[in-house]
Amino acid sequence: MACLKLYGSLMSTATMRATVCLVEKELEFEFVPVNMATGDHKKEPFISLNPFGQVPALEDGDLKLFDSRAITNYISHEYAGKGTDLICRDSKKMAIVAVWMEVEAHQFDPEASKLAWELFYKPMFGLTTDPAAVTALSEKLAKVLDVYEARLAHNKYLGGDCFSLADLHHLPCLNYLMKTQVKELFDSRPHVSAWCQDILARPAWIKVVEMQKK
Amino acid sequence: MACLKLYGSLMSTATMRATVCLVEKELEFEFVPVNMATGDHKKEPFISLNPFGQVPALEDGDLKLFDSRAITNYISHEYAGKGTDLICRDSKKMAIVAVWMEVEAHQFDPEASKLAWELFYKPMFGLTTDPAAVTALSEKLAKVLDVYEARLAHNKYLGGDCFSLADLHHLPCLNYLMKTQVKELFDSRPHVSAWCQDILARPAWIKVVEMQKK
Repeated sequence: MACLKLYGSLMSTATMRATVCLVEKELEFEFVPVNMATGDHKKEPFISLNPFGQVPALEDGDLKLFDSRAITNYISHEYAGKGTDLICRDSKKMAIVAVWMEVEAHQFDPEASKLAWELFYKPMFGLTTDPAAVTALSEKLAKVLDVYEARLAHNKYLGGDCFSLADLHHLPCLNYLMKTQVKELFDSRPHVSAWCQDILARPAWIKVVEMQKK
Repeated sequence: MACLKLYGSLMSTATMRATVCLVEKELEFEFVPVNMATGDHKKEPFISLNPFGQVPALEDGDLKLFDSRAITNYISHEYAGKGTDLICRDSKKMAIVAVWMEVEAHQFDPEASKLAWELFYKPMFGLTTDPAAVTALSEKLAKVLDVYEARLAHNKYLGGDCFSLADLHHLPCLNYLMKTQVKELFDSRPHVSAWCQDILARPAWIKVVEMQKK
């Protein structure tokens, strides 16, 4: 039995974020599905793992964690010697990675996750997309991607020369957005486009997408 | 001349967050004011420090960083031996601190910073507070504080036994909110109230509030 247990739903971007980190680190783990359709994330026993009732949560032996970014951070440090190195040992390089992790969380994700809701999840649930919201969110995301284009013109990855958590955290939203009309925002920026193709083609990410289909 | 330079405005909660961290770590630094009233944060030379045009930014010799939480993270690790220990050396304890740092960023701050805008900044700028927004935000913040109350009933600080970045990151918004009608949300929860009083009374925070008055 694996001592690492990840609780979540593979429809959730946050769960996919934690999952791809475990796969990149080549760690054995047990995936414990949480049925969000029946609201199991808002009830016991899950609510004891995360009092905010949001997937995912992780158990590593006695240690219980929640929040996808706190989970990836822990896994990357605790299992630094396994699989892909997702953080930098050098403190100054790590500081730059941390800056772009915050950029993902505070500049990219607020717009990207709302766009994923409007353009991917709403149609899937039979709800109506709000075109005005999509326009406003797309304009904001375009400005963020302008900064990414300038950054990626001089660095292969957001955190520097190497793929890191700063890139990995983008994968789930990026994956959904590339199936929608806002794909054009990424495709029209050559360095952003090359970066998307690169990170979405990583074997660990492809494995997570396959897990989702099961 | 100090080799640490913090660029920002002490009216900004993000700048105050980075400043109180430098003060807790007892580090010598030069504070370089950025005039937000004249939009200097959106122009060169500041925009070269942060392409998103948001204060604060930090220079540590050749290293240039932005985003308040990335800055506090860097300072706490790079200067681990100085001043207050704001992170834990033990990886499992650090993981718990990291969870509550994410809680601040994704559960507390979105509601708290909008409430600070409605109830503190808007009146200061002669703008009209939106009572419906205040009601909705207060209801959301109350639910977050219910989780904090349960957590703080068993732990002196959010991250565990010791004051850490998980607590420190709350200080600037907390400081403004305690001057508004939503103070009652904190006062009515005994463990939250004791925690607020404790962390707002820290000498480092009092020093930052004094810096703001100058």
